Amino acid sequence: MPIYLDHAATSPMPAEVLDVYTAELSRRANPSALHAVGQAARMRIETAREDIARGVGAATSSEVIFTSGGTEADNFALKGLYLSRNNSTFDAPVRPRVLTTTIEHHAILDSVEWLASQGAEIVYLDVDEEGHLDLDAALAELRRAPESTALISIMAANNEIGTLQPIAEIGAVANDLGVPFHIDAVQALGQIPLNFAHLGATAMSITAHKIGGPVGIGALLLDRGAAPAPILHGGGQERGVRSGTLDVAGAVAFAKAVELATADIETRAARFSFLRDRLIAGIEDTIDNATLSGRRGGGRLPANAHFTFSGCEGDSLLFGLDARGLATSTASACSAGVSRPSHVLLACGMEEDVARSAQRFSLGHDSTEEEVDRLLEVLPEVVEQAHQAGMVSATPRWMQGAS
Amino acid sequence: MPIYLDHAATSPMPAEVLDVYTAELSRRANPSALHAVGQAARMRIETAREDIARGVGAATSSEVIFTSGGTEADNFALKGLYLSRNNSTFDAPVRPRVLTTTIEHHAILDSVEWLASQGAEIVYLDVDEEGHLDLDAALAELRRAPESTALISIMAANNEIGTLQPIAEIGAVANDLGVPFHIDAVQALGQIPLNFAHLGATAMSITAHKIGGPVGIGALLLDRGAAPAPILHGGGQERGVRSGTLDVAGAVAFAKAVELATADIETRAARFSFLRDRLIAGIEDTIDNATLSGRRGGGRLPANAHFTFSGCEGDSLLFGLDARGLATSTASACSAGVSRPSHVLLACGMEEDVARSAQRFSLGHDSTEEEVDRLLEVLPEVVEQAHQAGMVSATPRWMQGAS
Repeated sequence: MPIYLDHAATSPMPAEVLDVYTAELSRRANPSALHAVGQAARMRIETAREDIARGVGAATSSEVIFTSGGTEADNFALKGLYLSRNNSTFDAPVRPRVLTTTIEHHAILDSVEWLASQGAEIVYLDVDEEGHLDLDAALAELRRAPESTALISIMAANNEIGTLQPIAEIGAVANDLGVPFHIDAVQALGQIPLNFAHLGATAMSITAHKIGGPVGIGALLLDRGAAPAPILHGGGQERGVRSGTLDVAGAVAFAKAVELATADIETRAARFSFLRDRLIAGIEDTIDNATLSGRRGGGRLPANAHFTFSGCEGDSLLFGLDARGLATSTASACSAGVSRPSHVLLACGMEEDVARSAQRFSLGHDSTEEEVDRLLEVLPEVVEQAHQAGMVSATPRWMQGAS
Repeated sequence: MPIYLDHAATSPMPAEVLDVYTAELSRRANPSALHAVGQAARMRIETAREDIARGVGAATSSEVIFTSGGTEADNFALKGLYLSRNNSTFDAPVRPRVLTTTIEHHAILDSVEWLASQGAEIVYLDVDEEGHLDLDAALAELRRAPESTALISIMAANNEIGTLQPIAEIGAVANDLGVPFHIDAVQALGQIPLNFAHLGATAMSITAHKIGGPVGIGALLLDRGAAPAPILHGGGQERGVRSGTLDVAGAVAFAKAVELATADIETRAARFSFLRDRLIAGIEDTIDNATLSGRRGGGRLPANAHFTFSGCEGDSLLFGLDARGLATSTASACSAGVSRPSHVLLACGMEEDVARSAQRFSLGHDSTEEEVDRLLEVLPEVVEQAHQAGMVSATPRWMQGAS
């Protein structure tokens, strides 16, 4: 088995989650059915909903709207809230403004770009070189025209460089102004405490597979008073705003994963932080051309370490580590074999060459000191080889002028 | 264990599917990751895609776009094709017409109603009292104004009464006219042969949990030349038109379920038809007030039997059977405890009282003659009791005038 340092992409399923999941798979029925097996399934999914609500500090279980994952939750929040703030049509919006940052996940950025193509006016809020929101500018922008603002969406923590954002401060002001606030908490869940009831948010996206739950299920936490327009129409299974047969087994396993990831979040976060800081210190001690991205200590996700390695191609580092049995990520979008530099790193002001030298190391529930030490043992050689290979592996020299 | 006659709602997972599913769950990774475990996951999902393509007669595996299920596939097909036929905006549509029937699943009907709220012009095609499309009228409507028609969507088989529709005939004409044709094949998969390459369709929705695959995964079969607008924006994992982390375990289990359900479709369908016809004949022989809905023999889904029981409340029948260990369905939407008569049955011209007396019996891979015979044994008593209770159980008398 490789040493897996890519939990931020998908985290393997702990045995406790796998056990409840497989038990549930063999006794399923449609929870919308009225017969006894259907109603038993309904009871199990409602218990799961309560467990998830408890794990994220929601006021009631009815605030948990199951989705197919983080991408759907993000799309639903943005498009659904936008429509509900604009008389449910794209025609002549009364509140055309959507506020967000330049370093959101593509599920947010591509959704707002689509909204822009339908008449929305997107205001991109700036971040500093550590990927931290300029809070004063953001609040000023929020206060500037609340009456024409459909919503504001800010991630709790960045998925690439791990920077935490001041979501409570944003929430307090948004709440005062009556502007719906959406939090993308996909990466933050299980790493920092999340208390939906106290964040001033209208909606918050989470997903199961980043914390060891199943792929294919997530949730949008949705304030009781909020009624976004549906983006998946049909049977109306979830408060009339989300349709599709409810995935009982997925929900039960998701609830178990949430319980494991949040029941003792301080201990869990402290354990992650210890490993992360050992990893960061080890790299900084041994590798000259390594630069930590984002913030240190309490300002970043406990399980995230992200570096650029000047003069190295990110893919070279990834393949060098992979050949030695360590799974990591460049955290860059990959399209048709050509690596593109991360939009997050470019938004933090990095040059393209620097952005292309990135490597993300993300920890999970079963990560160990030995695994971190093994990374530290092999990384210098991998970096040295990648440095010798230079910056041409992904983008041929003749293409560099055009990129 | 109850006798389960509600496979059309959700079909339990066969052991072979559960085995490959659980094996896959314990070795997962994100298939978009570049490291070896990610690429191994990618290979397994691409093999699953090929298996599914083979099972439904798609020309290439790239025509299989994974979704979170039938509801998303239907929403994606309708909204995505509508937008792509209208310059990707809802503003001043050049092809405002959407053709569909009055007896589609709510995932279709609610999607087209939403499109209507954004400016689309919906043409509802009529069905006869057996729920069969009036083909001549449908083709005439299709030919009337193809240049202003965004798409036509017709289900392969009705989910309540099992009537098969003339999809090949629709497909041939739609194809000639260049109008995109979407087939909702969610109920038909595994019961009738489906050959996507020869149906003249642009898109076709299927889902896993109706054939014993996982809940939470489905697919839209999508012609290579079609480029519907995305409805879930983000990482662009599926041909750039559908985003969200790919569910490898779900896809592999889905592929196994498709293989089991389609590898010998004639034998499977014959077995279903034998049980179904035994069930239908048994009910007609013993229960005076029972009337079969829809068509007989080759005109209906092999695993579907649907009756109305004059003077009985559907819910009374359901609970009477449930108390005796048989799980069935009224196939009616249930909202806030008040049963509403099925839109399908009303569209077939039934009176409300008759529509509310319905009961659906749907068979699956593990259904047996003994189970059918047990139903036939207990049903007369259940019908007799429901008849004595009358038609007041679900809708209080004082509400009936308003419904």
